[in-house]
Amino acid sequence: MSGQVLQFQQLQSTVDPSFWAELGRLKLDTLQLSEDAQPITGFYSANTHSEYPASLLLDGQSFQSEVPQRKGLHSVPGNLLNVNTFERFKAAQEKASQHLQQVSQRIWQDILSGEAERRPALLARFLVLSYADLKRFRYYYWCAFPALKPPQAFCCTSLSTLEEGLGAELAAGTAEACCEWQECGSASSQPDQAAEGTSGGAPVWLVHMADSAADCQPLAAWEEVKARGGRWLLGIADHGQLPGNPGWLLRNSLLLAAARFGVSEVEVACIRLRRGKPSAQHSLLLSVRLPDASQVDWGASQPAPTGWELNARGKLGPRVMNLGPTMDPRQLAEAAVDLNLKLMRWRAAPALDTARLAATKCLLLGAGTLGCAVARVLLGWGIRHITFVDSGRVAFSNPVRQSLYEFKDCLEGGLPKAEAAAQALRRIFPSVHASGHQFSIPMPGHPLSEAEVPKAEADFRQLEELMEEHDVAFLLMDTRESRWLPTVLGAAKNRLVVNAALGFDSFLVMRHGAAPAGPEDAARPAARAAPARGRLGCYFCNDVVAPLDSTVDRTLEQQCTVARPGLAGIAGSLAVEVCCGALQHPEGVAAPAAQHDAAASSATSHQDSLLPLGPVPHMIRGQLSRGFAQQCLVGSAFRQCTACSWAVVQQYRQGGWPFILQALQDPHALEDLTGLTELHNSAAALMMDASEEDDDEDESLLRASEAPADDWLEL
Amino acid sequence: MSGQVLQFQQLQSTVDPSFWAELGRLKLDTLQLSEDAQPITGFYSANTHSEYPASLLLDGQSFQSEVPQRKGLHSVPGNLLNVNTFERFKAAQEKASQHLQQVSQRIWQDILSGEAERRPALLARFLVLSYADLKRFRYYYWCAFPALKPPQAFCCTSLSTLEEGLGAELAAGTAEACCEWQECGSASSQPDQAAEGTSGGAPVWLVHMADSAADCQPLAAWEEVKARGGRWLLGIADHGQLPGNPGWLLRNSLLLAAARFGVSEVEVACIRLRRGKPSAQHSLLLSVRLPDASQVDWGASQPAPTGWELNARGKLGPRVMNLGPTMDPRQLAEAAVDLNLKLMRWRAAPALDTARLAATKCLLLGAGTLGCAVARVLLGWGIRHITFVDSGRVAFSNPVRQSLYEFKDCLEGGLPKAEAAAQALRRIFPSVHASGHQFSIPMPGHPLSEAEVPKAEADFRQLEELMEEHDVAFLLMDTRESRWLPTVLGAAKNRLVVNAALGFDSFLVMRHGAAPAGPEDAARPAARAAPARGRLGCYFCNDVVAPLDSTVDRTLEQQCTVARPGLAGIAGSLAVEVCCGALQHPEGVAAPAAQHDAAASSATSHQDSLLPLGPVPHMIRGQLSRGFAQQCLVGSAFRQCTACSWAVVQQYRQGGWPFILQALQDPHALEDLTGLTELHNSAAALMMDASEEDDDEDESLLRASEAPADDWLEL
Repeated sequence: MSGQVLQFQQLQSTVDPSFWAELGRLKLDTLQLSEDAQPITGFYSANTHSEYPASLLLDGQSFQSEVPQRKGLHSVPGNLLNVNTFERFKAAQEKASQHLQQVSQRIWQDILSGEAERRPALLARFLVLSYADLKRFRYYYWCAFPALKPPQAFCCTSLSTLEEGLGAELAAGTAEACCEWQECGSASSQPDQAAEGTSGGAPVWLVHMADSAADCQPLAAWEEVKARGGRWLLGIADHGQLPGNPGWLLRNSLLLAAARFGVSEVEVACIRLRRGKPSAQHSLLLSVRLPDASQVDWGASQPAPTGWELNARGKLGPRVMNLGPTMDPRQLAEAAVDLNLKLMRWRAAPALDTARLAATKCLLLGAGTLGCAVARVLLGWGIRHITFVDSGRVAFSNPVRQSLYEFKDCLEGGLPKAEAAAQALRRIFPSVHASGHQFSIPMPGHPLSEAEVPKAEADFRQLEELMEEHDVAFLLMDTRESRWLPTVLGAAKNRLVVNAALGFDSFLVMRHGAAPAGPEDAARPAARAAPARGRLGCYFCNDVVAPLDSTVDRTLEQQCTVARPGLAGIAGSLAVEVCCGALQHPEGVAAPAAQHDAAASSATSHQDSLLPLGPVPHMIRGQLSRGFAQQCLVGSAFRQCTACSWAVVQQYRQGGWPFILQALQDPHALEDLTGLTELHNSAAALMMDASEEDDDEDESLLRASEAPADDWLEL
Repeated sequence: MSGQVLQFQQLQSTVDPSFWAELGRLKLDTLQLSEDAQPITGFYSANTHSEYPASLLLDGQSFQSEVPQRKGLHSVPGNLLNVNTFERFKAAQEKASQHLQQVSQRIWQDILSGEAERRPALLARFLVLSYADLKRFRYYYWCAFPALKPPQAFCCTSLSTLEEGLGAELAAGTAEACCEWQECGSASSQPDQAAEGTSGGAPVWLVHMADSAADCQPLAAWEEVKARGGRWLLGIADHGQLPGNPGWLLRNSLLLAAARFGVSEVEVACIRLRRGKPSAQHSLLLSVRLPDASQVDWGASQPAPTGWELNARGKLGPRVMNLGPTMDPRQLAEAAVDLNLKLMRWRAAPALDTARLAATKCLLLGAGTLGCAVARVLLGWGIRHITFVDSGRVAFSNPVRQSLYEFKDCLEGGLPKAEAAAQALRRIFPSVHASGHQFSIPMPGHPLSEAEVPKAEADFRQLEELMEEHDVAFLLMDTRESRWLPTVLGAAKNRLVVNAALGFDSFLVMRHGAAPAGPEDAARPAARAAPARGRLGCYFCNDVVAPLDSTVDRTLEQQCTVARPGLAGIAGSLAVEVCCGALQHPEGVAAPAAQHDAAASSATSHQDSLLPLGPVPHMIRGQLSRGFAQQCLVGSAFRQCTACSWAVVQQYRQGGWPFILQALQDPHALEDLTGLTELHNSAAALMMDASEEDDDEDESLLRASEAPADDWLEL
């Protein structure tokens, strides 16, 4: 019998998009920049269709460290070499033969050591080189199914279907036994064993035939099967569908038979399935002449491997899968945005808690120049909940400075700003939870007529509810006094409050301190050297008078946004960076202020260096006309503050709306409440005595001098 | 003859939108915050229609200091009191009687002095109080047509049409004479005289009748007319249409007749027009009994005035005109945007040249995070010409960070960025001139195959042309080396080049210096204390090697925008502010750098304080993780710079594309050209000798240490 050189049908890979999705997740969350080989699992079944071969499947489960037995599928081990750049991928391609060599060496060792008999899946060990362009959802990959070349070619001395070769009865019995073998694997109560292929269900096995009965045994039982005498076959779950050729994975099994069983010829049952069961009509029976074991020194040299997969053009080379077009664009957008954030953790900010940001709800009071700028940077940071409050409508002068509006929003009197801003966010990023509320924030010093009180109360209740529902409130309005009520509510509810205000060529960005813990909370006078230790001040802590109506008598340029157009971008961006810095700080709203001063470039402390986004300033003031100067300042909470002091917060907590209404109608009541009235009297007295007490600076006067200039023009 | 108390039909104002448009322009350009009374001119005609009275018209010509005679219209003088705020308007209203008093006093003086006879239009002197809400196109105004109350009421002793009263023939002659009087005014070759009413055409005149002939004479000719004897009439262009009452403006004329002519009764011809000519059938003839001149001491007390106009509800009070809804929305948007810019000049930046900004053409190289941010701030500054260059398409991760794109722009593979960005600008502000070009900027260190050269040349030519056409180029790309070619072109063409680059939590914004004037231009070593005196450096002046391919081997997070999302807003805004600051500087691209250093808050020099937007920094570097530090730096141009040095610029000017191509293919050629190669050799030699020359810092090494950190991650 000379026979023909046996040729094998190549195994093809099928990579499910879930494989790439899972790789993307792993890459972002765990692997990051690592290029270490990752163990993965591939799945293949015996052939089930006359026209199509079965293929090796990679999917989302391929990355699980303990893969459960999947009905009808054989789990085989592989390695994934995923690299970080396209250039690295090309370099890996150039070293393809080296990579293949390494894997096939392991297969060869497993054959020689007998390990492959205990775990036949090791014979199908495979390799994937890949580069995942997660940004564009393009995946480059190249699979290898290494087959070791025998010292002499395998020759086929007979080929038939199982039924023809064995006769109908024995073939049926054999098919039946193989079916049990498979199901024994599937139904195994020991999934670990099954997965490892040490028991039933392995993709390669032995079939022993005595008389007309057949039974299946693991490869490891070779000696026993041999000892039993009689006819035996090598059984294999065959992925190929060709009538004249077995599938690729038989190659290493034949080599094992040659090297380990010491036989010169082997009969093989290539089991193929129909309707889920081994089919005697479609399975093949082969006789294969093996290399003459007596003439081969198996240990002397490792057989050369082959096995890189051909690409779609039938050439040796990688494939590319472009998932972009197939994905739901909304999901694509979500994934892409997520990606950008997670990438920060690879090198720049490994401790960054993006989930914390995604879960944060932000309330933007004011949807003007600053409100739009802040919302956009929040989106960039992955904040998904943004709520606007604004009483105005979009005017024709707005779109060129307010980055969420377009010309069409100004037509017919203009859309309500808050809702238009929310709509814009949804146009930008459909998955955002954005909403807008059109109402005015009640302001002290704008006395209400009796008829106006019910509306003001409703506005107050709505604001109160919104402050309750959100984690952060941005104060981005165009009057000083409209910031008072949200400042009180923020202090009472211990919310993070971030404030931004613009002048013509200057800005102030600040975050408020935490809720006061008691009447003496802010009283720790805090050594001047370390003001950051005490509770941080709010926007009103520098004031020694209650807020009053500042809108009376505004000229046109005071009503409009007469600020240098670049300021809103700077201040809005800084406000969000301050917010995110505080959110990422373990102390959150109570995070101490970054120490800045002259030592701007001094090394940061060890503690600070552990903060994902670094230390967080309290106040930042900038001025463009003075050579673009920018300073960070720190100010403690003021015990007699008309907004965040214990006295005010407690009165609000106890008095609710009636207290607020009183303050709106008569802001001076706040001065009485906080003791400012008394302070004024004593300050006046102090002025009289000033000549005698030159050295003893009065703190309140000092504070006043630190207050934002009166000509702050707020947005 | 007792007669009836004569009643007059009130004069109504008609304010044409062009009046408000012109007021808006004047206010923004000239008046600004001034509330001084402005002289204006009103126009009225004699009545032309039986059902409608004629009214006093105010329009765009009302503000001209020399108003030409307008056919059929009488020009009458008035004052406009335009105030700056709604509150001031309400205050002015409260003082309405005072204002009226002041104007009527002038009328009374003009009557007594005889001035009103020489210029009868003075009798119709009027007053307008107004407040123009230019932002919302709402105009509040209140007109007064002061009439002085006579000591005794005017009594009508007979009333008829002119035809009935004079008989057909004389009436026709009178009408004919009045017609000539009017036309004599219209056709006058002395417009000044006509406008002043000293000659024909005045709205009040005398008609002398002898036999059946009538002729018109000016009021000032009263004595002569009286001397001629015979019947005479007071002629007036009568705005009213009522058959039984004359119009309001007759009142002051009757008072003049009483006070100055010393007559106790006067016949009046209230001339009304049909088909443009005085109509005897429609004009009225009145006999009016005047206060008895002999019983009145005219000089003793001023008659009380009356004359505030009723509003649409028939009450004494202002009217409001809301022009918003009637204007072309595109024009509204243009006007509104213009307004915001011009408002800056009222108080904040009086020297600001907004026209210079509007005429500036900006080229944005890169339409990513920075490109979008820069374009938006440019729009805010009133820049109307913006051109984008970008080779990419909008990806799903872009819209949340790149403020000109929306989700829909990412679908189907994404729109080309440059065109999508230009479209977005047009959606925001339809009057912008925005365009996008999709091509790549050729980069040194990215060698071209022969097949790629023609495309690279075309890209180069296109960039060259765009640099030629624009005044400013912003370098906002994502690789260092793509900035080289536009830097060379900018230096050769002396364009303002502004550069912005982002790291993860740091940024660099800088402007390049002017074109080198000669080989030694940058060689002035410039005392370290005043580096701003020399030509300023470019982005490559800190490098001691030629730009090379930096994109090879970029990992995912290096390809993406892994910067803190707030940075683009900050850096983009600063880039535009630096640009606008330089554009407003008298030296433009050659503006010296702001001196900053430690003395950030020191008083600016006198010269600097004259700059509309203050002194302009050269480089601004910021870092968020170090407590939000920001510094301004200054660096002189480097004589051996591979981009902006004389050697490179001259080679480009002489060699054109072949020179550029050589540099692209072999950047080291630039090192040879500029002498860097030599410098490297001598630096290497210097290192050998370092121990001996410790104090003699090598300038090139110093520069290298100032260079941006290698881990700049550019956008």
